[in-house]
Amino acid sequence: MLISESALRSFTENIFKAMGCNEAHATLAADVLIKSDLRGIDSHGVARLNGYVRLWEKKRINTCPDIKIVYQTATTATVDGDAGLGLVVAPFAMKVAIEKAEQYGSGWVAVRNSNHFGIAGYHALMAVEKDMIGFAMTNASPLVSPTYSSERLLGTNPMCYAFPAGKCPPVIIDMATSAAANGKLEIAQRLGKLVPEGWIQDKKGHSTTDPHALKSGGALLPLGGDYDHGSHKGFGLGATVDILSAVLSGANYGPWVPPFVSFLEPPTDPVGLGIGHFVGAMRVDGFRPADEFKEHMDNWIMRFKLSATVDPYKKVIIPGEPELAAEAVRKVNGIPLVDAVVNDLNVLAERFGVEKM
Amino acid sequence: MLISESALRSFTENIFKAMGCNEAHATLAADVLIKSDLRGIDSHGVARLNGYVRLWEKKRINTCPDIKIVYQTATTATVDGDAGLGLVVAPFAMKVAIEKAEQYGSGWVAVRNSNHFGIAGYHALMAVEKDMIGFAMTNASPLVSPTYSSERLLGTNPMCYAFPAGKCPPVIIDMATSAAANGKLEIAQRLGKLVPEGWIQDKKGHSTTDPHALKSGGALLPLGGDYDHGSHKGFGLGATVDILSAVLSGANYGPWVPPFVSFLEPPTDPVGLGIGHFVGAMRVDGFRPADEFKEHMDNWIMRFKLSATVDPYKKVIIPGEPELAAEAVRKVNGIPLVDAVVNDLNVLAERFGVEKM
Repeated sequence: MLISESALRSFTENIFKAMGCNEAHATLAADVLIKSDLRGIDSHGVARLNGYVRLWEKKRINTCPDIKIVYQTATTATVDGDAGLGLVVAPFAMKVAIEKAEQYGSGWVAVRNSNHFGIAGYHALMAVEKDMIGFAMTNASPLVSPTYSSERLLGTNPMCYAFPAGKCPPVIIDMATSAAANGKLEIAQRLGKLVPEGWIQDKKGHSTTDPHALKSGGALLPLGGDYDHGSHKGFGLGATVDILSAVLSGANYGPWVPPFVSFLEPPTDPVGLGIGHFVGAMRVDGFRPADEFKEHMDNWIMRFKLSATVDPYKKVIIPGEPELAAEAVRKVNGIPLVDAVVNDLNVLAERFGVEKM
Repeated sequence: MLISESALRSFTENIFKAMGCNEAHATLAADVLIKSDLRGIDSHGVARLNGYVRLWEKKRINTCPDIKIVYQTATTATVDGDAGLGLVVAPFAMKVAIEKAEQYGSGWVAVRNSNHFGIAGYHALMAVEKDMIGFAMTNASPLVSPTYSSERLLGTNPMCYAFPAGKCPPVIIDMATSAAANGKLEIAQRLGKLVPEGWIQDKKGHSTTDPHALKSGGALLPLGGDYDHGSHKGFGLGATVDILSAVLSGANYGPWVPPFVSFLEPPTDPVGLGIGHFVGAMRVDGFRPADEFKEHMDNWIMRFKLSATVDPYKKVIIPGEPELAAEAVRKVNGIPLVDAVVNDLNVLAERFGVEKM
């Protein structure tokens, strides 16, 4: 089913309002989800709306949060999200970072007591629009085992770096620090296919190609897959995200991060508040004139984009380009939703007395 | 051959002085190299001394540089290294970052017109000693192909994140963004062994297990190895390092980065000056009281360190621990040097009229 951006946006806003969000929060939260769907990242868009509703039902999401700065210096701050939607808490934090960067060159905000914040790229792009370099990361429910471990201790902990360019679109590196994201496993499960070695391990910690292994106690593997292929580096990146997002802010880290799914209870011995994010903004013209930077970004992009490739039909992909291409198409043609998602959304519509899709 | 730290240090200082470095620069440059050898990162220690000498002979390294800030805001700066040794330019930049962080909470310095800076961890640790989180990265000679490309466009571009802890040693994530570093290929070459799939490709861009492929026009692969295993993420990380280090600072980026080896000439159409670094420091107490942060770091470390593993003899490795263990041993027993390195050093000694090892 194809649905127009505007129809999906209104629908999503209405659900958030029905959950008790004020107008501004509902608009913002919907914007983050719709942006994800527009950009082709279907796993992080309205497909998750149901998940947010369930956490709210369990009183694990507060739709009327008092989001505030609890600690700060000129260029650093910690924000407490008051258990609000990460979809509104993270943009609040990014605004603080941008304001600090406007005044002092850079701004950095660690966030505690938050929830899933959608796609990291949304938040990092807020900085790019101001000619700043944007940084955004978050920890998440533990699904990934460190190298050699048989325990799930880290989330897929994405990190995003976003750079403004001149005539070319911005470069947006937005990546899970695991070898593969959960969404890819779900696709393989649906198609009844095996997954490549290096994505997951079974309950005992042995490498497997069975995409169902995660559901039966297995774990995702860090980027790299195994030690020989550098999984200790993927572990190091996931650890960096966890420490900056949660040890620095006072959120839960590692295996203490509360699960996104409502049917799993959060640990009873929390080490902090909610989940954590870390965002930052750096003014490009804090280092060199913005025009110069952008001109060289364009040169960088074109040199990589036009480099020789093994297969002439597979060009080097500049990070952020596929998402931009999807956005251009979906803004015109509408956003494709699979039946399962449409059904989920219509159940929500019925429940909240909102017009169906 | 085992040589004591102090003997190797004096020897290295003498070589740098003979190259024209002043006392302070010689001491600092030697300290960076010796720290690498102490920490067991043999590829980046005195084994490279000969390489620095050759670049100096080619007038590509200036041993009397006028290192200065050329652009700045309260918390950002660009430093021009005046073609100096990266071993002295990067610590200068890190000092600027730390001073800014002391005053404003964080400090960020992009560096142009520099050379190889040794191990990233040395510079990041300067911040850790001040209860700050340290960041250090550098671009490097192009040896890595982006996903799908058959060209060498990026260096092994390491990134380092370093976090102070309390009773536990600091967590130091210091990693090349390629699947494997060049040093690992050299070991396989020496032993006549094949390397795992996913480390390198041949001249045409096809995956190979021949460790000699790099020397015959092949390339290292980004962390992840191939697209299915997330090499686009490794490419994104390498790109991030390249952009922050060089597009931001005005250094050479991508395939324009001058080669470390003196027998290859730098490109004749440079896009900037020398190679680039990016360093940063953030005060921990800009986010929460330092004691709290450190206590939770210790808790984080112990939880991961003691997690269940597949093989009871292979525990989870906390990033930075193996290097610290090597340092403890080598400070007492001395630093092991292979014959080829000792010979190289003694040739230098003879040339500069310095006492042999």
